[in-house]
Amino acid sequence: MAQFSPSASLLSSLKFENGLIPVIVQDAGTKEVLMFAFMNQEALQLTMDTKTAHYWSRSRKSLWKKGETSGHYQKVEQILTDCDTDVLLLLVTQTAGACHTGYKSCFYRTLEGDIIGEKIDD
Amino acid sequence: MAQFSPSASLLSSLKFENGLIPVIVQDAGTKEVLMFAFMNQEALQLTMDTKTAHYWSRSRKSLWKKGETSGHYQKVEQILTDCDTDVLLLLVTQTAGACHTGYKSCFYRTLEGDIIGEKIDD
Repeated sequence: MAQFSPSASLLSSLKFENGLIPVIVQDAGTKEVLMFAFMNQEALQLTMDTKTAHYWSRSRKSLWKKGETSGHYQKVEQILTDCDTDVLLLLVTQTAGACHTGYKSCFYRTLEGDIIGEKIDD
Repeated sequence: MAQFSPSASLLSSLKFENGLIPVIVQDAGTKEVLMFAFMNQEALQLTMDTKTAHYWSRSRKSLWKKGETSGHYQKVEQILTDCDTDVLLLLVTQTAGACHTGYKSCFYRTLEGDIIGEKIDD
């Protein structure tokens, strides 16, 4: 499997605020937004090298390979950045669900409180 | 046009970090992720009251009605929150493009530097 070959200039232009860049994670097939997280430089490098999503956990203050305990890995198909190069968008193939609550997506509720997300049996 | 009627408990559980909550903005029709921004409490209230997206500009330190100068307003169809209630996801109908560069989405580039986004003639 070929690794990502990022543009050196684009990669060096990425803005890490206090060492972190926000990451939006979207299902490559359905386009559903699955979750939101942060990466530091090391997490991004590991993600590019392995094509498996790695993040920085702000609460645990540690590197976090998504799915390491749950088995719900994310195979990274594409990485986009935005006009200001201060946000990343990952298109992934998600094993089972992204959310620890058992939903496919962490965004399973409207502000009205309606549950619109899909539960994953795993 | 009916206003949003958020769940009082869900609304009060939203976590604003230093007064701000991250907002992912997605096209309600195509599911394309259009942009990423922040809201403060006032921007969220205005967004719910008017069904037109308002944000907080961290660079300008001011409230920002999206489209006020460009005419590229966002009609808000649905507001979701995530499992931790610390991120919002807006599903919008976007007039013309969301990005000041002329692209439909701010996420028009891969990290490899390939342009994959759609330019909007306006």
